Amino acid sequence: MKKFFSVADVDNLDTIVREALELKANPHVNDTLGRNKTLGLVFLNPSLRTRLSTQKAATNLGMTVMVMNMDKDGWALETQDGVVMDGTTVEHIREAAAVMGEYCDVLGLRSFPSLKDKEADYNEDLFNKFIKFCGVPVVSLESATRHPLQSLTDLITITEYKKTIKPKVVLAWAPHVKALPQAVPNSFAEWMCKAQSENLLEFTIAQPAGYELSEDFTKGATITSSLEEALTNADFVYVKNWSSYNEYGEVYPVRENWMMDNAKLKITNDAKVMHCLPVRRDLELSSEILNGPNSLVVKEAGNRVWAAQVVLKRILENLN
Amino acid sequence: MKKFFSVADVDNLDTIVREALELKANPHVNDTLGRNKTLGLVFLNPSLRTRLSTQKAATNLGMTVMVMNMDKDGWALETQDGVVMDGTTVEHIREAAAVMGEYCDVLGLRSFPSLKDKEADYNEDLFNKFIKFCGVPVVSLESATRHPLQSLTDLITITEYKKTIKPKVVLAWAPHVKALPQAVPNSFAEWMCKAQSENLLEFTIAQPAGYELSEDFTKGATITSSLEEALTNADFVYVKNWSSYNEYGEVYPVRENWMMDNAKLKITNDAKVMHCLPVRRDLELSSEILNGPNSLVVKEAGNRVWAAQVVLKRILENLN
Amino acid sequence: MKKFFSVADVDNLDTIVREALELKANPHVNDTLGRNKTLGLVFLNPSLRTRLSTQKAATNLGMTVMVMNMDKDGWALETQDGVVMDGTTVEHIREAAAVMGEYCDVLGLRSFPSLKDKEADYNEDLFNKFIKFCGVPVVSLESATRHPLQSLTDLITITEYKKTIKPKVVLAWAPHVKALPQAVPNSFAEWMCKAQSENLLEFTIAQPAGYELSEDFTKGATITSSLEEALTNADFVYVKNWSSYNEYGEVYPVRENWMMDNAKLKITNDAKVMHCLPVRRDLELSSEILNGPNSLVVKEAGNRVWAAQVVLKRILENLN
Repeated sequence: MKKFFSVADVDNLDTIVREALELKANPHVNDTLGRNKTLGLVFLNPSLRTRLSTQKAATNLGMTVMVMNMDKDGWALETQDGVVMDGTTVEHIREAAAVMGEYCDVLGLRSFPSLKDKEADYNEDLFNKFIKFCGVPVVSLESATRHPLQSLTDLITITEYKKTIKPKVVLAWAPHVKALPQAVPNSFAEWMCKAQSENLLEFTIAQPAGYELSEDFTKGATITSSLEEALTNADFVYVKNWSSYNEYGEVYPVRENWMMDNAKLKITNDAKVMHCLPVRRDLELSSEILNGPNSLVVKEAGNRVWAAQVVLKRILENLN
Repeated sequence: MKKFFSVADVDNLDTIVREALELKANPHVNDTLGRNKTLGLVFLNPSLRTRLSTQKAATNLGMTVMVMNMDKDGWALETQDGVVMDGTTVEHIREAAAVMGEYCDVLGLRSFPSLKDKEADYNEDLFNKFIKFCGVPVVSLESATRHPLQSLTDLITITEYKKTIKPKVVLAWAPHVKALPQAVPNSFAEWMCKAQSENLLEFTIAQPAGYELSEDFTKGATITSSLEEALTNADFVYVKNWSSYNEYGEVYPVRENWMMDNAKLKITNDAKVMHCLPVRRDLELSSEILNGPNSLVVKEAGNRVWAAQVVLKRILENLN
Repeated sequence: MKKFFSVADVDNLDTIVREALELKANPHVNDTLGRNKTLGLVFLNPSLRTRLSTQKAATNLGMTVMVMNMDKDGWALETQDGVVMDGTTVEHIREAAAVMGEYCDVLGLRSFPSLKDKEADYNEDLFNKFIKFCGVPVVSLESATRHPLQSLTDLITITEYKKTIKPKVVLAWAPHVKALPQAVPNSFAEWMCKAQSENLLEFTIAQPAGYELSEDFTKGATITSSLEEALTNADFVYVKNWSSYNEYGEVYPVRENWMMDNAKLKITNDAKVMHCLPVRRDLELSSEILNGPNSLVVKEAGNRVWAAQVVLKRILENLN
């Protein structure tokens, strides 16, 4: 593996999930693979789970980790060429990325979307330039449009807890107080669509009218605006809020109750409930579910380590 | 040891102090005990000495350390159940603690009191919930009412420098410009009271009227509002400011001079002078003392490593 | 080596540069030298390249690194004696430095100048007190008047890329939008002057009238206010902005074009172009140069590791 940015960077999902679960069973079996290799984690936006789980995964592989929290440093990067830098940007991404590539063997990068300019966000300009100029393998720690370590984690978790060969997996929109990116649901959708094409599961998306995701991520999925229809016979419900893609970054009022709760759980096939966290209790997802036996959210967060570890392992194996 | 929150978590003070001093003599003798174990240090309030000394102690034991500075991240935790999270809190302590427990084998937590709500501070709600929900051993890096790593450090330092079998130890209130928590003096008092009950020392507290500490921490101590009386024949003077417990968080004007200086030192038995740092020079404690041979403050800060190391060692020995 | 603060801490430049280049060829050959030794990096001002490269160098030597970002902590240090600390400073440098010396075997410190008070900046009061009170070897990570790890890096880079035995090296002032310290050019000048005295190169400084550096750093250099004269036959051009030393911290308007670009490059002997980064593109230095084969800026930044590593190696060899 030379980079990890989207599901397209993985040949076979079943294979990588099995490899991740083997690492979970034996976390320290490759603890010299990363000897004398440095992982740099660059956060242009804040992180908790991603930083901790990736740091732990790298340590399990024997790597050294250096963290750069650039969100608080007022480190405004210039990404455009041909600009006279006499304003607020203090460094060009050409130099910034290249220098990090001098110090690190592998780089991780997190960068959120603006939610203002759809085209700029969805062409992933910053991420693509960082990959181009740093000269070393890059792992996405969440970009404007995708969060692949989360999606791989989710597939690992579904594989661990499934009771049927081909479970029904539902991505269900939920309310929130803020306008959130589409990165997590986009990414979940493209991973589940590929998993469906590998016959690993059946995938349905439910969202209110106006909250349709970009078709680039949902091809192959069953899509409905009826939550009840989607939840019927569901084995896994992935709860997540996102803002509108079509009216980019907008938040429409939704009159119906889309919060996942025990009443809705009864429609399902005793479904396991997932969420990428942090979750707003009793707004996105009820406390009764989160405190009960159907919730996987904590174990799912724990699995972030094995997603990161299998990705770093494959990248290390491909270094020189 | 399964947690380290108060003096109640230690059976015998003399034994743990001796073990700490053995580690000071041989810091690296257990350097594989923490192999493949991760310590997470969660700071809801800032830290310098505590972070550095605990990080060093963990490294001496071969542990991996991950630091989470949550005070700057605007990471507002919800601690109450049954709240619809449509406001400013972004994550519930149930999920936040449980997820950290997924990534770490041992957790350290620092959380200061509000100094507004006595009951909420003194029932240690946040700390107790964190311990309950994270599912792994927790070390207090200072809570609303206690700072046990500091107090163990202080007892180690007294043991190292005592010239008599049963020295007279005095906790002496001192002036400050801000309202400070009672955590350090509370904790020092409960450790010294227990040490007194083990016949290791004699313990006296001196504070101006209005600054009495909670009796839950001072049972067994000699308490006086006469600094002169307390300092007479003292072998160790522990200088510290705190705000009022009774009129919670208030700062009363004090007309008499309670700053520790050379004139007051003359009343003592050539006492060693201690302070947990940071110290306001010539407000709490005179420069002449701090620059002179009676001050232990720097060596005391250095001993923070051995307090942390003996606690982590005992917790590691008890894992699995 | 007992400290690394200026060029005066190095006996022979040619020897240290050769040793650094040997480490570059074999980075891990001394990876047990720093075993059980702790490096503390104290940043009173922000850092990217310096932190990453020094962290990597220390890790290559087997040291443990602890980073203290004090710039964001509102940790205001008192540096004067005899002050009653009832104001905004929360800790005296006597205690702060001494405590860090308790936890660390070697300390690095970064502290920028005020650019307001020339005397206070140029007597390096904070740095000298830190060195005095911490009690362990100190490495400058940039002080008010010098940036020696950068200058050593620059000499390593010149040595690597020189095509003649005694290349002509030019320090060329360039425009900027902010008032910048003289630390980098001061330091570069004192290192190049010493290198010239060792017959390693010829050194010229070019700056507009009003931007002369302090003579304490430039003795032996050829100094001119004609950029064209300086660039003629130059083998290396080191581009850098700085504010006025004489009218301390002032920024005079400069009418002529001092930005380094391809037209000016033609005057040189196909010179290699250097800059300590971050660089303002098309203000200090043209994009065409930065994107082209004459730019060394990225490789130069990469060499920061070997400068830090040779310095830490020499300090470790001298411990105990």
